[in-house]
Amino acid sequence: MDGPTATLRRTSLERRDLRPDDLAIQIDYCGVCHTDLHALGHHDGGAGHPLVPGHEFTGVVTETGPEVTRFSVGDHVAVGNIVDSCGECAMCRAGQENFCHTFPTLTYGGTDRQDGSTTLGGYSREYVVRDRFAYPLPSGLDPAAAAPLLCAGITVWEPLHALGVGPGSRVGVAGLGGLGHLAVKMAVALGAMTSVISRSPDKADDAHRLGAHELIVSTEPEQMARARDRFDVVIDTISAPHDLGPYLRLVAMDGTLSHLGHLGPVTVETMDLLVGRKKLSSAGSGGRPATAAMLDFCADQGITAEIELLPSARVNEALARLRRNDVHYRFVLDMSDLG
Amino acid sequence: MDGPTATLRRTSLERRDLRPDDLAIQIDYCGVCHTDLHALGHHDGGAGHPLVPGHEFTGVVTETGPEVTRFSVGDHVAVGNIVDSCGECAMCRAGQENFCHTFPTLTYGGTDRQDGSTTLGGYSREYVVRDRFAYPLPSGLDPAAAAPLLCAGITVWEPLHALGVGPGSRVGVAGLGGLGHLAVKMAVALGAMTSVISRSPDKADDAHRLGAHELIVSTEPEQMARARDRFDVVIDTISAPHDLGPYLRLVAMDGTLSHLGHLGPVTVETMDLLVGRKKLSSAGSGGRPATAAMLDFCADQGITAEIELLPSARVNEALARLRRNDVHYRFVLDMSDLG
Repeated sequence: MDGPTATLRRTSLERRDLRPDDLAIQIDYCGVCHTDLHALGHHDGGAGHPLVPGHEFTGVVTETGPEVTRFSVGDHVAVGNIVDSCGECAMCRAGQENFCHTFPTLTYGGTDRQDGSTTLGGYSREYVVRDRFAYPLPSGLDPAAAAPLLCAGITVWEPLHALGVGPGSRVGVAGLGGLGHLAVKMAVALGAMTSVISRSPDKADDAHRLGAHELIVSTEPEQMARARDRFDVVIDTISAPHDLGPYLRLVAMDGTLSHLGHLGPVTVETMDLLVGRKKLSSAGSGGRPATAAMLDFCADQGITAEIELLPSARVNEALARLRRNDVHYRFVLDMSDLG
Repeated sequence: MDGPTATLRRTSLERRDLRPDDLAIQIDYCGVCHTDLHALGHHDGGAGHPLVPGHEFTGVVTETGPEVTRFSVGDHVAVGNIVDSCGECAMCRAGQENFCHTFPTLTYGGTDRQDGSTTLGGYSREYVVRDRFAYPLPSGLDPAAAAPLLCAGITVWEPLHALGVGPGSRVGVAGLGGLGHLAVKMAVALGAMTSVISRSPDKADDAHRLGAHELIVSTEPEQMARARDRFDVVIDTISAPHDLGPYLRLVAMDGTLSHLGHLGPVTVETMDLLVGRKKLSSAGSGGRPATAAMLDFCADQGITAEIELLPSARVNEALARLRRNDVHYRFVLDMSDLG
């Protein structure tokens, strides 16, 4: 990474020697996530730590440490945005490694718990990961289109699942991008009556094709007013900072707005929560059991991301287009051009 | 009311002639709520509308309109902070008149739906109210100590009830004032393991006397750290603006912080919600069915407010002391000195 210009360049890097419970993976496909843009924008290119983004990838096991029993060479596997956790705190014991009290080790830009090195992500041909944080890739899933399930997918699955979305639920999905289109597919597959809320009326066809019941245009006050108090759950996937009030007003009595778009402080008017006893929550990532369950669900339902597949050499083009939201709906890098 | 000095003076006022579904009530006791202070602080004393605060009171029916069937002269009744609503919107039909889409008519400072007059509250010897918004006062409840149930009581009851607090729940109550002490009594009576979170270590005796399991001193980082992720529900009754982060961190996985203290915007860090899939909600007031259920529950459990009873002539003393939080735990005005 060359610094704040956020241009990536190809380099060589060394992965660690396998520990007893490690796998080596040949990465075939890696999704391009908004987090990658964010990390590139904040990276100090001169600090001596290279930044290698990428935390939703699929590939094939090429080597296993002596204690690994769940995987064999040749298995198709997937890795998400967490590669380790303490394993001992209440959250880890509950299978919510993403909430580990000592903070989970991130797939890139994290600090390895054994040797203190900085983790380097999946924009790469190889990765070495502790076996607990690799997932068998169900055979029915296309490995390129499945890669985004490991970050975008689990991020929308967690709130849908935790908030009890199922047959008869009314779900609104705000924003129809990488997260949003997977939220629509999953909510529909869970049996929910699902609506998309978007600024763009021209997303109506896509919304319907993905299984949504309707598109509500967020810039049309009358459409927003008609949808007031309608949804048990609103999944807000809008990545830019924005007023949550209009989306809270779409939530039904005792319902929840789950906000996924960005980190940092959010402000809400008390009255927007109070009137209708609504709740605000936030979600991102998921634990190991939920990730495995999500992959099984997606295999059962035939759900993968809608992707644009590019050779990894075109990563800077993907990043530039993602920066201007020009993507349908997720870029995935094909790593085979790395040899 | 004399304006921004917030000194009340005695005056005469005329209540409306009874409509067919009205009751006239002789008010015996009226609680002094933080909202009253707020309203007095914001009242334009010169605008021609007198401000008569008071929205939690008990008394005796003195006259009934011809269509009133639920009440008779001599009945003990109670009135809270809502005296009318549209009756037709989805919220009213669901018994949540407090969320009426046309905004409920407030007991004081509201606008009467029939004649457009400004409603005048319960710091008064008489009130005229539509029968739907009066509640029979259960005979087991002391009418002075029961008055605060109609605002403080229902305000804490709603979130405890909506969030499913019951045997085995772990509840934290932040702030031990007018709202907080009723939240403790109700949570304990519902079977919850209940803790008080307060700046004041000297509230430990009171907390235990009210049935709480423990007092957590909010200014002691070690005590707050030990209570991390502990409570299914935290009821935050602190009336001054404050950082919600420390209270969100006490909430257990999938639990809720219900914030009652003040209106206006609140800001939370996304990470405080995200880590542990926590939810933020806000509550205030309640609908007619919940108010009636709360009164029945309090009668069954012998719950009333801890009060300081003052003759109504000493209202300015009560307001001054409430302003500096010098109250155990609610002032109630005895209206019998008004004749």
